[in-house]
Amino acid sequence: MTKNNKPYRLRLPGPTAVPEQIRMALAEPVVAHRGPEFAEVMAETGQLIKPILGTANDVMAFTSSGTGVMEAAIANVLAPGDKALVLVNGQFGDRFVQIIEGLNLQADTLEAPWGEAVAVDEIAKALQDGDYRAVVAVHNESSTGAVADLEAIGSAVRDSDALLVVDSVSGAGGLELQQDDWGVDVLVTASQKALMCPPGLGLASVSEKAWNVIENGAGQARFYWDFRRARESAAKGQTAFTSPMPLIYGLRESLRMIHAEGWPNTLARHRRLSSALRAGVQALGLAVFTKSPMLSDTVCVFEMPDGIDGSAIVRHFYETYGTVIAGSRSKLRGKVIRIGTMGCITDEDIRLDLEQLEGALSELGWSVEGGVGQAALEAALQPAN
Amino acid sequence: MTKNNKPYRLRLPGPTAVPEQIRMALAEPVVAHRGPEFAEVMAETGQLIKPILGTANDVMAFTSSGTGVMEAAIANVLAPGDKALVLVNGQFGDRFVQIIEGLNLQADTLEAPWGEAVAVDEIAKALQDGDYRAVVAVHNESSTGAVADLEAIGSAVRDSDALLVVDSVSGAGGLELQQDDWGVDVLVTASQKALMCPPGLGLASVSEKAWNVIENGAGQARFYWDFRRARESAAKGQTAFTSPMPLIYGLRESLRMIHAEGWPNTLARHRRLSSALRAGVQALGLAVFTKSPMLSDTVCVFEMPDGIDGSAIVRHFYETYGTVIAGSRSKLRGKVIRIGTMGCITDEDIRLDLEQLEGALSELGWSVEGGVGQAALEAALQPAN
Repeated sequence: MTKNNKPYRLRLPGPTAVPEQIRMALAEPVVAHRGPEFAEVMAETGQLIKPILGTANDVMAFTSSGTGVMEAAIANVLAPGDKALVLVNGQFGDRFVQIIEGLNLQADTLEAPWGEAVAVDEIAKALQDGDYRAVVAVHNESSTGAVADLEAIGSAVRDSDALLVVDSVSGAGGLELQQDDWGVDVLVTASQKALMCPPGLGLASVSEKAWNVIENGAGQARFYWDFRRARESAAKGQTAFTSPMPLIYGLRESLRMIHAEGWPNTLARHRRLSSALRAGVQALGLAVFTKSPMLSDTVCVFEMPDGIDGSAIVRHFYETYGTVIAGSRSKLRGKVIRIGTMGCITDEDIRLDLEQLEGALSELGWSVEGGVGQAALEAALQPAN
Repeated sequence: MTKNNKPYRLRLPGPTAVPEQIRMALAEPVVAHRGPEFAEVMAETGQLIKPILGTANDVMAFTSSGTGVMEAAIANVLAPGDKALVLVNGQFGDRFVQIIEGLNLQADTLEAPWGEAVAVDEIAKALQDGDYRAVVAVHNESSTGAVADLEAIGSAVRDSDALLVVDSVSGAGGLELQQDDWGVDVLVTASQKALMCPPGLGLASVSEKAWNVIENGAGQARFYWDFRRARESAAKGQTAFTSPMPLIYGLRESLRMIHAEGWPNTLARHRRLSSALRAGVQALGLAVFTKSPMLSDTVCVFEMPDGIDGSAIVRHFYETYGTVIAGSRSKLRGKVIRIGTMGCITDEDIRLDLEQLEGALSELGWSVEGGVGQAALEAALQPAN
């Protein structure tokens, strides 16, 4: 229940609502983190995650939020004096810059306006002109709904000495990822977005090209974040330091659910539901904020019409319906609303999202022709044939 | 169940068995980590933890293992060029040295043989001779069962410019802690030991003396571990980055349980059960490994007699009884066994520990007079009068 006793509905672009069977998995008894029972859990989880990330790498687990593994990725690959080229078109690109500068390293940026895509064809030129250890990108910029074309970025980086470091915290599990084929060298993600788990677990997957850099020890991660230590432990079905067991139990359950649905079906559901929500909301007369060619399937970001304050919409959702959607905590505050379309959501969820948005807009004085939004949403929900 | 279908009994010195009502708390629905419902959970948890640590400070929460917050403590207080004086008498003192050196800082050590106490009267002299930013100590050295006399160490450090940094990962919740009175400047602990929760949550509490150092920004923690950022968030009932919600729910439940038992009673139970287990095992003819004046109430460490391999005892416990106790992962491997006496344990637990140890020793050829151990244990369990 919410504080004012409405049934609570979590519709953020993360953390996302956790299905009951995953919540029950969290409650499984804690066992020895270096014993055979837990090694089995780790082994199964480690196998089930690979197709989701599109990798044959052993995936390493950290007790960490998404930001922690972003910092870990940087700390492992960049040595003092190294420069990174960061693609910035939203809040999490900015965060990478802060992390890099916080480690006393240099971050040059290739920028695009928020919501647009960074021009991939400038990457190759930048790599020729500058001596970059890494190109750093955000797969799914959840602050704007823009998705980076990792395949194209990977092609631009692949033949250089630079490593491609990618944050897919809000992408993995809801967006296609082909780490190995696309040439992503360090991929990090976390449990609480499309992977349907609570927050608390960070994941990292590292290419051979990146291991060659990390193994020589030039990086700055010497203990907690040290990928070398984590890799040794992962090979034994362990983590370097005590594992966040409930989260691993939860992730295993989540991955079992994804594979039971069929991973391509999970992806198609994300695409279908996010497209339908956008269609419905656009029919209400609102614009999709995102202008990049690739739109997110895991979060929908809508621009507020003149005179409508996004924060008031968010408040109305919470106070009237008990539904928690997101505004913006960045420079877009008040200008956009963001609704998660990832994890365990269903047709019913987005129908309700639209109905509540219609109610909120109407309350705030935006008149909407009845039924238009629902019709567009339902049309988009129909399977194409 | 264990892999060979015995009922599983977790008796490690952490992670410890998690009581069912805490496990159920982990499964509570995830909510918005910056919303009012979660702020209430954080506020209650933040109040309930203070008496356990003996502090009036706002306690900060991190998605982290114990090692992570140890690294965070160091990264926040030591600037490049700074030296720390580390008290080393076991594995976690060694770990602090590794962490400090990993950050390219200098760690001088005051050492004692493992299991003994570091001579507190050498600290004042060392502080006069060397220019130390911090004195670093382990409260409860779970590798050996030695407890540091933090009150005396605090007295030695208090009037110097140095900060006292303490790891009480395996102490807090089972050993008395008076952070403020004893002059502990940075105290870190974690969820999975005497606090009866699963692993995944690190906690840090910082004195005004330490804030004066941290706020000037000399430290190296610029983002994920930045205490300044964490402090701002804690004041709002939040964490700087997405909270590991299930662990916070669990910690709140754990603290409610401790306060329902009565915190002094919780401490007395740890003292009584650990003393009784030591008495019983000593009556079997085994020696307590720990030689420091202050013995741990949260872990009992026993020396193996000649010809008995500690690893074989650990294996016998697991294979025959389904009970997981610890040997050593350090230079004491094979020479000691370690049994956790922290968290939700009862008289029955230590009776069973002793019975199973008697069985294991007998199986490995150590003949024991029947009933002697149990008698000593039962005598020690009686309330003094």
